[in-house]
Amino acid sequence: MTGPRYTPLVESLPATVPFVGPETQERARGRPFAARLGANESVFGPSPRALEAMERAAREVWTYGDPENHDLRAALAARHGCAPANIAVGEGIDGLLGYLVRMLVGPGDPVVTSDGAYPTFGFHVAGFGGLLHKVPYRGDFEDPDALVARAAETGAKLLYLANPDNPMGSAHPGETIRRMIEALPDGTLLVLDEAYIDLAPEGTAPAIDAEDARVIRMRTFSKGYGMAGLRVGYAIAAAPLVAAFDRIRNHFGMGRIAQAGALAALADQGWLAGVKTGVAAARAELARIAAANGLATLASATNFVTIDCGADGAFARRVLAELARRDIFVRMPFVAPHDRCIRVSCGRAAELSLVAEALPRALAAARV
Amino acid sequence: MTGPRYTPLVESLPATVPFVGPETQERARGRPFAARLGANESVFGPSPRALEAMERAAREVWTYGDPENHDLRAALAARHGCAPANIAVGEGIDGLLGYLVRMLVGPGDPVVTSDGAYPTFGFHVAGFGGLLHKVPYRGDFEDPDALVARAAETGAKLLYLANPDNPMGSAHPGETIRRMIEALPDGTLLVLDEAYIDLAPEGTAPAIDAEDARVIRMRTFSKGYGMAGLRVGYAIAAAPLVAAFDRIRNHFGMGRIAQAGALAALADQGWLAGVKTGVAAARAELARIAAANGLATLASATNFVTIDCGADGAFARRVLAELARRDIFVRMPFVAPHDRCIRVSCGRAAELSLVAEALPRALAAARV
Repeated sequence: MTGPRYTPLVESLPATVPFVGPETQERARGRPFAARLGANESVFGPSPRALEAMERAAREVWTYGDPENHDLRAALAARHGCAPANIAVGEGIDGLLGYLVRMLVGPGDPVVTSDGAYPTFGFHVAGFGGLLHKVPYRGDFEDPDALVARAAETGAKLLYLANPDNPMGSAHPGETIRRMIEALPDGTLLVLDEAYIDLAPEGTAPAIDAEDARVIRMRTFSKGYGMAGLRVGYAIAAAPLVAAFDRIRNHFGMGRIAQAGALAALADQGWLAGVKTGVAAARAELARIAAANGLATLASATNFVTIDCGADGAFARRVLAELARRDIFVRMPFVAPHDRCIRVSCGRAAELSLVAEALPRALAAARV
Repeated sequence: MTGPRYTPLVESLPATVPFVGPETQERARGRPFAARLGANESVFGPSPRALEAMERAAREVWTYGDPENHDLRAALAARHGCAPANIAVGEGIDGLLGYLVRMLVGPGDPVVTSDGAYPTFGFHVAGFGGLLHKVPYRGDFEDPDALVARAAETGAKLLYLANPDNPMGSAHPGETIRRMIEALPDGTLLVLDEAYIDLAPEGTAPAIDAEDARVIRMRTFSKGYGMAGLRVGYAIAAAPLVAAFDRIRNHFGMGRIAQAGALAALADQGWLAGVKTGVAAARAELARIAAANGLATLASATNFVTIDCGADGAFARRVLAELARRDIFVRMPFVAPHDRCIRVSCGRAAELSLVAEALPRALAAARV
């Protein structure tokens, strides 16, 4: 008997995937982590108003969410000074990236990204058969000029750039992104992943006309707004591109609690400001902890701090493992030379004091 | 300047889509519906234990949900007497259907369904370029023999059947489905959509070995469990097919509240039993209301009742519009001869008394 007849493309995809959550590690370890600082979640949590809105929405969860996401799109449009027709809402940036890649990328189509950048983007490109061309970082920064040059060479349909960057936490000023957009080859769409923009310095987000057909920006409620487990992302783009999502998206994919929580979080900018303050304090404390151990940190435009462990990838991986043994969940970049670093999310004082205690021991153990 | 370069397939897809929610109608009308009985949502709502679990999970929503959906899959496996490796969890049955079609269906690949069956399945098949072959209903029932015959003729990769059926509410006994599986042509995967199975008579769900590679069953927390706005569906299938979802799915797509709510709802089978009782009473009351207006109803194995308006599609559409004018939201089948009917979700006494009041007036107005 024949089993399901997969498409040749799906047949060719790897069976194993890089999506390992901390819960998987906890099950393997047989005990929970004491500090969850590896996924750049916001330990500060969501606005209490968002919490109330989610609880209220839970009592109406017997109804499907509005498939047009009307109220949330209207509020996002008002906030960004564009039209609701410029806003697409989806199941996190991950979900939106999947839809976008599906719309543009078929087998053999060229796509450009940085080597070591967000792996989920590459997962989607591979999933639709695209050819991913990777450009090295320039130091600890993604390299806009080299990315644009590679897009021109390859005729890339998509160029993916995260600004601020994950996993390094670095950022280019908005003006650099503006110049990059002007330099894009005709027919290349810039996917500007701004997941961390709410935590970046003033001036990191460039002014872009929402109707500019050369770029789609992606934002999320997972980072600054502290609702990673709600799964709400959005894109800002020209109206025809936003409308194209309707041809393929899961129209009822955004549930009632998700829409209500995001709407209330957006309205509480005071909470977001408080999170920024907490993140800034945590960055400083993580730098202090690293320095106390003789380690340097990279300047961060995000809610995590990249600590240079001062040796090679093998050493950093040992440090990571030793931290995990001491119940601290952190992650690290995949690709050399950045894999000399580990990446620690900004926590509150409670979590950071656990890091302060565990790090010297982890380093000592890793050096043995 | 060239805009985004879509794939030829996406370029060819229709710009308009059939996903119109009641909120869209409410915005157009300028006032809310008094009775929301068109989307087969469960007015009875979710278990209070699920509500508590969602509220608890909201306070942890700063964390991503477990990408393996471990606890929910374990509980579902225990309930269904299979292994967690036989359970795929996704963003509603709609989301799972999208993934499944993507895995199997490429441009020109044949797929079989019934003419007038769940349109979202057809949306996904079109979205991946499949050729949808449609088989007429036999009376008010989908026609298993004809579906299997068409699958053999066309070499269909997928055969979609909803049992119980939407939009008619009819159901075949599980034994018929068993025979259908035995008769499937080699290489055709049966997609058995059991969204309404929790509300169907004993014996509607066939016994199927979870490792049977000929069939994938889909279930949901949207209907009997009363959590349409949470977006949790699951599939039961052979382990290799379940594992294949990992190659393409949005791994962090199931949020923390969604997983927690579903897990708690599953544990409260007493609540589900109560919903069944409520649904049975509502079916009887809807039949009584219809009869009082000289109309017949179809036997229902679901949480909705299909009322035969006794004339043609044009008349039923007028009845629907007149009910909407009287603030009652219901829907109807798309395809003749079933579009002689309207489809009313099972409500509580409060909603049904509104129907009892509005229906005679709507019928009178439609007859003018």
